[in-house]
Amino acid sequence: MNTIDALTKVLEERRNADPESSYVASLYAAGLDRILKKVAEEAGEALIAAKNVEGTTRDDALIGEVADLWFHTMVMLVHLHQQPVWVLDELASRFGVSGHVEKAGRTTSQID
Amino acid sequence: MNTIDALTKVLEERRNADPESSYVASLYAAGLDRILKKVAEEAGEALIAAKNVEGTTRDDALIGEVADLWFHTMVMLVHLHQQPVWVLDELASRFGVSGHVEKAGRTTSQID
Amino acid sequence: MNTIDALTKVLEERRNADPESSYVASLYAAGLDRILKKVAEEAGEALIAAKNVEGTTRDDALIGEVADLWFHTMVMLVHLHQQPVWVLDELASRFGVSGHVEKAGRTTSQID
Amino acid sequence: MNTIDALTKVLEERRNADPESSYVASLYAAGLDRILKKVAEEAGEALIAAKNVEGTTRDDALIGEVADLWFHTMVMLVHLHQQPVWVLDELASRFGVSGHVEKAGRTTSQID
Repeated sequence: MNTIDALTKVLEERRNADPESSYVASLYAAGLDRILKKVAEEAGEALIAAKNVEGTTRDDALIGEVADLWFHTMVMLVHLHQQPVWVLDELASRFGVSGHVEKAGRTTSQID
Repeated sequence: MNTIDALTKVLEERRNADPESSYVASLYAAGLDRILKKVAEEAGEALIAAKNVEGTTRDDALIGEVADLWFHTMVMLVHLHQQPVWVLDELASRFGVSGHVEKAGRTTSQID
Repeated sequence: MNTIDALTKVLEERRNADPESSYVASLYAAGLDRILKKVAEEAGEALIAAKNVEGTTRDDALIGEVADLWFHTMVMLVHLHQQPVWVLDELASRFGVSGHVEKAGRTTSQID
Repeated sequence: MNTIDALTKVLEERRNADPESSYVASLYAAGLDRILKKVAEEAGEALIAAKNVEGTTRDDALIGEVADLWFHTMVMLVHLHQQPVWVLDELASRFGVSGHVEKAGRTTSQID
């Protein structure tokens, strides 16, 4: 199972978790606007981190902020009953790359 | 190869592409600020699309906007010599889910 | 008349303008989501410009981006039948500063 | 004195305030990235509030969020030694409206 699928599974399971003990469940309970506020905040932090990058080695601050951003967009999607894998499928379709690993019969030769 | 890896490969290849004929190459050529402007724009559009969702079926507008957002963050990462897979690794690490599919020796039983 | 009031007057008058010949009228005609997209875009550009400031002299790029941001938030407010002066009143109230110049009987001694 | 000038005066005075007792001083002390994070957050909240507006009467949530956004952009400007009035001057110049009230010798007949 790849990371996006595995994380989606966790996010789905958190629907039934206690908001007191699970951050994700607390976001679901707080509602869409609270989740979107986090998405906006993390997008801003990713921009700031990107402007702070120096050199070409791994920048932990930027990687962490993009992880925060992707994570909260996934929480947003699951809260709205949307599958994060649909985003990957959309990207795969746009760029002609092999789709989601589990169902892809297409080969990497299709990558242009 | 999963979608993020396949798309990363495309984005790396676009470094050598003609900005006149490739959108990604035109973003690289325009520079970081131009790429970040797109990230901010797409984050805003994802928020707006999320507020417009009605019902629980697939919402193509939202999926498309999140795809745009993830895509432009990946362009940002590659432009800054950062690997998008590091973001997935960070998420896998945080949530105790199996890491990137190619190298994961861990099993899905580790998903909490 | 101060600038915010004068600009509000212009934005109100643009309600009746031709979208073909007026940028503001074209935004009203395109609708709220189009206006909000511009607000998000300009917020991102203001962030980027702020990170690019060097020194302490006037930075035309930043001033221009903040002007864009305030302007598009004013278009958003007028489109939604909200008065930009209410924002100034809110700020004046929060900070105990004299309110809007035309109606303020309060003195600057109230500025804490 | 109009609200933007009065608020600018407060923000300038806060340079010498104790970060423990003044929110603005705490933002200055935390630095530019912390201020920009707030700008991004408030821009997101303004977008969300705008999408939540119903009817045409005063919407306190939206007015409050735009006040937050303008306020934090002003903190950003002052932190970077930029004058908020320059933003108003830029807007006045673009739209041909009378400039800042204290120095404007121009009349409202110039408002196009």
